[in-house]
Order: sequence, then C-alpha cells, then structure tokens
Amino acid sequence: MGRADFPIWFSERVQHMETVLDGFLPESSIVPMRLHEAMRYSVMGGGKRVRAALVYAAGEACVPAGQSVTSAQGIALDHAAAAVELIHAYSLVHDDLPCMDDDDLRRGRPTVHVRFDEATAMLAGDALQPLAFELLAQMPVAPALVVQAVEALARCAGSLGMAGGQAIDCASVGLDLSQEQLQIMHGMKTGAMLEASVLLGGIVAGASSTARQGLEAYADAIGLAFQVVDDVLDVVSDTSTLGKTAGKDAAGNKPTYVSLLGLEGSRELLQALRQEAHAAVLPLGPPGTRLAELADYIVGRNR
Amino acid sequence: MGRADFPIWFSERVQHMETVLDGFLPESSIVPMRLHEAMRYSVMGGGKRVRAALVYAAGEACVPAGQSVTSAQGIALDHAAAAVELIHAYSLVHDDLPCMDDDDLRRGRPTVHVRFDEATAMLAGDALQPLAFELLAQMPVAPALVVQAVEALARCAGSLGMAGGQAIDCASVGLDLSQEQLQIMHGMKTGAMLEASVLLGGIVAGASSTARQGLEAYADAIGLAFQVVDDVLDVVSDTSTLGKTAGKDAAGNKPTYVSLLGLEGSRELLQALRQEAHAAVLPLGPPGTRLAELADYIVGRNR
Repeated sequence: MGRADFPIWFSERVQHMETVLDGFLPESSIVPMRLHEAMRYSVMGGGKRVRAALVYAAGEACVPAGQSVTSAQGIALDHAAAAVELIHAYSLVHDDLPCMDDDDLRRGRPTVHVRFDEATAMLAGDALQPLAFELLAQMPVAPALVVQAVEALARCAGSLGMAGGQAIDCASVGLDLSQEQLQIMHGMKTGAMLEASVLLGGIVAGASSTARQGLEAYADAIGLAFQVVDDVLDVVSDTSTLGKTAGKDAAGNKPTYVSLLGLEGSRELLQALRQEAHAAVLPLGPPGTRLAELADYIVGRNR
Repeated sequence: MGRADFPIWFSERVQHMETVLDGFLPESSIVPMRLHEAMRYSVMGGGKRVRAALVYAAGEACVPAGQSVTSAQGIALDHAAAAVELIHAYSLVHDDLPCMDDDDLRRGRPTVHVRFDEATAMLAGDALQPLAFELLAQMPVAPALVVQAVEALARCAGSLGMAGGQAIDCASVGLDLSQEQLQIMHGMKTGAMLEASVLLGGIVAGASSTARQGLEAYADAIGLAFQVVDDVLDVVSDTSTLGKTAGKDAAGNKPTYVSLLGLEGSRELLQALRQEAHAAVLPLGPPGTRLAELADYIVGRNR
C-alpha cells in the first residue's frame, strides 16, 4: 500500500514541525530563562515526531472528499501537532527523573535533569502541559471543535490515559502481568497519546463520527504495535542505535511483550496489528494512505 | 464594606466545593487505584478554597444587572472553581517534593510523597493538570467562552505564570532580590492563579471587557497581598496554626517581603493593597461586594 513518496512526506512534516515548535516555545532569552531553555531542550531534542505526523496524516485524511486542508485548518493542525509533541516531551522528561526511571540518556543526549537539575526538569514538564492546552485554545477553527480537541487531549493525557499508564507501569515492576494487563497498561501509557494525535487531526478536519470510529480503531492497533516494537527493540537493538539505554527493561525486571510472547510471537502480533491498522483506515479511501504508511513505519522502525 | 453574612456565604461555597471536587475526582476504586487515591489525598486535604471562592464571587459579580447566575452558569462555575483548585493542588504536591522545597508537612498532614512515594506524587500532580482542562472543556456554556477559559487557565499556569514563578523562586534562594523582582516573582507564582480564578468566574458569567479589566486590577492587588500575608505569617505564626513548617523562609534564606520591608512596612503595604482591591471592584456595584469581602479575608487570614 505504501508509496515511494512517503519518506519525503514524512520528512517534510517533521522539518515543518521543528520550525513550528521553535516558534511556539518561549525564547530562552525571556524570563525565567533557565526554565525556557530547559523546555526547549526537552522538546527540540530530535524526537521522531511520529505523533505530529499522525496529527497531520489524520487531518489530511479527514477533510471532505475532493477538498484539501484549508489555510486555517493547516494552522490548526500545526497547533494540534505541537500540542501532542509537547505533552509527549513533558512525559519523557518526568519519566527520566530519578524518582521514576532514573535515566541519564535520551535521544543520545543527557536527560533534562542531568543537563539542568531535577527541579528545573520537573518544572519544565509542568510548564509544557499548559502550553499544549494554550496552543489548542488558539486554533483558528470553530470553538466547538477546539473544545472537543481540549477534551480529547486532556482525557488521553490524564489518569485514565498516559499518566495513569505510567503509574501502572511504575507499580508493576517485578510483577507478573498477564497479556491483558500488559495491554491495558500500554494502551494507557503509549496508546492514549497516539489516539489523541489521530483524534485531534480528525477533529480539526471536521471528521464525521464514522471517520472518527475508524481513527480510533486505527489508533488502538498502532498504539499497541508501538509498544511491542519498543519491547522488541529493547532486546535486539543496542544503546547507540536506540539513543537510550538498551536492555533496560529486562535489567529492571519489567514485564514486556517479548518476555510474555517471545521474539517470534511478538513479531507475529506486530504483523496482525499492522493489518488491523490498514483495515481501519480503508473506509477513508486514498486520503487514508498516509495513515496506513505510518502504521508500516511504526512497525518497521529501528529506534 | 463587609457584611455579617460573608462567613456563611464563604463557608457554603467551601462546603459545596468539597462535594463538587469529590464528584469530579476519579474514585479510588478505579484503576490505577493508588494514583487516584493520591490525587484525592492531594486535593481533598482541607485547603482554604480561596481560589474557588474567587471564581464564585467573580461569577456572581459579573452576571448582567438584575439577573442571577443561571443553572448552566452555576454548573460551569463549579467546573471552573474545581479546575483552579486542581491546578493549585498539583502545584503544592510538586512544590513539596524533595527536589523542590522538600516539605514533610502540608495542612497538618504528611505531604503526598511522604504518605505515598515520590513517583506517585509526581504522577498525581501530572494527572491533576489535564483533569482541570477536561473540566473546563465540559462547561455547559458557549464554546467560545470555554475556549477563553482554557486559554486563561493555561496562560496563568504556564511558564509565564505559576510554573515560571516557581522556577524564579527556586533560582533566587540566597540571592538579594529587589522589591520589584520579588513582586514579579510572586505575581507569577501566586498572583497568576488568583487572576485565573477571577477571570474564569468573569468569563463564565459573560463579563464585559470593562468588568474584566476591573477583575484584573483586583487580582493584581489580592495576588500581591496574598504573598505579603504568607511572608508575615511565616514570621509571626507557629507551625501548628499554619499547618506547615513556620519560619521556613528565613531558615532557607529566602527573600521575603518581611526581610525587605520589615513587619510594619509589610502591614502598611497590605492595607494599601486592600484598598486597591476594593476600588477595583467598586464599578461592579453591590454584586462586587463578595470580592471586596474576599480581599478583606485574604488580608486578615491567620493561616
């Protein structure tokens, strides 16, 4: 299903996202300077921008047939894509802190609390969250759509979404989780924000409720796939390729898909999820192709 | 200006807020249970609810002349009041962590990281933020007003508001700050969320732009007053009355209004700010009385 121009499309969106984020983040010269510097360091650290790409792909897929993204919708997608990247960035900063995963390395660079200090890292994360919601509030689309976007992001980032998944993850170190329990945890920790990404794209583009259902099914599949790939990479990859400490899950006695299903079983699950994702966006027709291609990318990524 | 029924009005709003917050917070029986328990512990710990009272007072002051708060506006005020209390609660939880103020006692009880653990305290704070924005998104008023409320809360909670003030506070321990620098810091750290409280009340009630200017001037005065009172209490009160460690600022060599202006100078400043606050809400007429009374309460409080 993938097209040869997908890498170009993806790379254009990623580069555009870097410019947009740079413009949205307060300058390091504005007081409090150290906090703003830490926020920029947290966000501009060379992330894969998969979530931003999902926002754009879902937005481009859901505009009414025969139309393309309007200028206002394009700006709104920038805001929405930046918002999910800011929430993702804050979660990594807090996750790396000593009281959580205590990681020194992220994307090949010192983590925020190592480069700055713990208090600054915590506050940088704390300040990235409201900036995400501020960007949504400033989207130039109908206020009713903005409200839907705020609600979706808040729900996916909260105690029944990402933050809750993080809490379950912390609490389950050293425990034997069933596949179902593992799936619930990752569905919250990782899946919820991937779901937020595609939902926000759909909301901005005025997606029908049928289209939104397709997006949700797609998000369920890629959310799970994302985590399975993470677990596989933790085993088969090395620290320099990953840009973070490899083998950490096994060392920390964390339950993973690989420990549960084995490498082969994990890879079979990935192919099934990839097909699920493709099927979910099929009703969107040709505009849904980018979403299918992103599913392939997520399953095939090596870092 | 104050009326004899103010304590009743205030106490009714506080009790109502407790019920409302109890209803909005996820039950401790819902997974992740420990996180939800920590969120409840953070929020339901007997706060003064000054911010909630400001939301209600501003809302009641800004409905058009001759009208009273509608049922939908009343529900929206509940959401807005809960939202500012959640943001305030999260900020205290993170502020008490070892990497920040490292406090063991808050409102006479063990702080969240002492009662639970550091990771749970951080995640509880992280999860309270999106819940606040979710509650705003669910307000039953015009979507355009909801969007204004989200933007105001996000701005006041962010790096140019509360989180930024916290960062400056951390960075200024042991430094000599001028009165102007101290004022900027506290204006962000404490004042911004008091401003958010009155603004949100005004927005829900459909306040005119003139009324909103009055609210902002009022918020500036009480925001500053709030901090001056805090500094005075840290010197003249004791730990059991305060419910937190007294004398902590002086021990930590933190710059305060008392260290800068002395006790007498601080008390003179308080009276001037009280008069400023009264003058700012005078144009609102009799419905603005509760706001004036809240200013008196803030200046006169002993914990």
